[in-house]
Amino acid sequence: MVNESPSSELTYRDAGVNIDAAEAALDHSKGAIRRTFGDRVLADVGSFGGLFRADGLGENPVLVATADGVGTKIRIASAVGKFDTVGRCLVQHCINDALVQGARPLFFLDYIGVGKLNPQMVASAITGVAAACEEHGVALLGGETAEMPGVYPEDEFDLVGTLVGVVERDLVLDGSRVQEGDVLIGLPSDGLHTNGYSLARRIVEERMKISDWCASFPGEETASCADVLLKNHLCYLKPLLPFLANPALHAMAHITGGGVVGNLPRVLNGFGAQVSRAAVPEQNVFTQLVETGNVPTDEAWRAFNMGVGMILVVETDAAEEIHSEMEASGYACFRMGEVTSSEGIHWLD
Amino acid sequence: MVNESPSSELTYRDAGVNIDAAEAALDHSKGAIRRTFGDRVLADVGSFGGLFRADGLGENPVLVATADGVGTKIRIASAVGKFDTVGRCLVQHCINDALVQGARPLFFLDYIGVGKLNPQMVASAITGVAAACEEHGVALLGGETAEMPGVYPEDEFDLVGTLVGVVERDLVLDGSRVQEGDVLIGLPSDGLHTNGYSLARRIVEERMKISDWCASFPGEETASCADVLLKNHLCYLKPLLPFLANPALHAMAHITGGGVVGNLPRVLNGFGAQVSRAAVPEQNVFTQLVETGNVPTDEAWRAFNMGVGMILVVETDAAEEIHSEMEASGYACFRMGEVTSSEGIHWLD
Repeated sequence: MVNESPSSELTYRDAGVNIDAAEAALDHSKGAIRRTFGDRVLADVGSFGGLFRADGLGENPVLVATADGVGTKIRIASAVGKFDTVGRCLVQHCINDALVQGARPLFFLDYIGVGKLNPQMVASAITGVAAACEEHGVALLGGETAEMPGVYPEDEFDLVGTLVGVVERDLVLDGSRVQEGDVLIGLPSDGLHTNGYSLARRIVEERMKISDWCASFPGEETASCADVLLKNHLCYLKPLLPFLANPALHAMAHITGGGVVGNLPRVLNGFGAQVSRAAVPEQNVFTQLVETGNVPTDEAWRAFNMGVGMILVVETDAAEEIHSEMEASGYACFRMGEVTSSEGIHWLD
Repeated sequence: MVNESPSSELTYRDAGVNIDAAEAALDHSKGAIRRTFGDRVLADVGSFGGLFRADGLGENPVLVATADGVGTKIRIASAVGKFDTVGRCLVQHCINDALVQGARPLFFLDYIGVGKLNPQMVASAITGVAAACEEHGVALLGGETAEMPGVYPEDEFDLVGTLVGVVERDLVLDGSRVQEGDVLIGLPSDGLHTNGYSLARRIVEERMKISDWCASFPGEETASCADVLLKNHLCYLKPLLPFLANPALHAMAHITGGGVVGNLPRVLNGFGAQVSRAAVPEQNVFTQLVETGNVPTDEAWRAFNMGVGMILVVETDAAEEIHSEMEASGYACFRMGEVTSSEGIHWLD
């Protein structure tokens, strides 16, 4: 803040807001955004609202909408100045949230709030969002970048996304077909995805005594802490799209904040589940965090996904076939338990 | 942060994240959220994604989607501990953004990011969002509350919304019908709406030397600074709904960040406009801010809406009729200029 006389002119820029920087960031990303448009988007970048043709979406289309952020994973992105990954994570997280209700994604909108707007940083985040959208056939229909000095410290930012997908009404996965004896099939995560970062960062900084995110992560030969903790949140659209119309698929749970115990019961329609933790393949990142942080087992399974990113609830008779088909398509999966009549999660080990 | 031995157990709560608080906030608001549902929402609060029936939305429905925040207005809400207004402002801002493309609103999703989660505060913000949604017939389809220590200072928070609306394809307002001579009709704002707050706060704090938001605002008999600066962002859905299918309505501009000069040209399809600033009824809040801050006129008209919240671009012959109809329905409006062949905004006074 400069010294000024009480009568000197005050402008918007004096107040710490730089409108041009937001424009510059958007200019950098316009090409990447337009590549996501497909044949349903009608307006160009910069309209008050994005326009998306909704004719012919199905007989009885149901829109599925979900909003989310990437949690404090964003602080590691800020610390190492790498923003495309969290952009991608945000899109893939939201796609998974719509997917578990049976929906394929249609379009996405992003919001970036920052303390001080750095056009390269914002452009990098939007490019990550746009790349993920393009890969998964999602139109990046709109977005907003807001410079908010004071709400965010200068070097911090938040990244928020909303995704809208569509599912035919009689194919909505609402858990109503779930029954006792249904088999739980897990799909592996790749690291923390977007949850448990406040705890993970505390363990890395205070217990592993690592202050440099570029230092090696314990138990990894070549990967740095940033490499390990900024891994992409996997998107399960490709492996699961072939099964969305399969009546043997009764429900799906996306394992995010709250872990297996916080997410699986949400789709069980009042039933419970017995779950084998040992069936979930171990990942070094969780082993290291839990051991070094001395995190109690139940707490670890609530804070982290612990290696399982998605759980399918499938009819007993069809479990073997779905399992084999998925593996034949090149996607790993594992049986990890079954649905029980009594509510809640009962750990088998 | 408590002292701990290197081997003591670490839990999620130690890392500053309180999952129960988010649940508690949502519990407080469930009734208000459900009241917005109408007959198109299929899932209850707490699903991975909200479900919205999209059958029968029209012959050739086009979805219009927009994402936004309320800018640093939120810092005044935090300072005085009043959060319902900004919740309402967010919804009404987004409705206006969809409206200017001809769309009526369908559903809304919110995101709240906070440094430290206070359930009452979050519930109050969500209740404001839900009340505005209910009033305007918008389903509050989903939302996310994220506690992000470090990204936000403890007492700060951000509030982000995404709205999806619908318009029949041949009624999309995209500016393509705009022509030279079209008349500009302005609708009054009620104060700052959600823009110019970084500058306004600086003027109040540094030039007016007001440190207490409950102190009177200059030139107001009874209103405090918080009263004046937390006024609702007006929603123009009710006054404008009757005109959305009127072919004489060629375009609309929602006057937000960037003011008249930043928003009107976006819908003029390459044309320009001559605009009378004197035609816009003066409001005390702008007079005081501009005088005390010694804000240059052009700068003031870029930072603030200066009294006009929405501008309609209408066919010359129909201008008088639209003007009268609006006033007959009880909504003030004023003629403020016309469309010109040369690009850009040309001030008449």
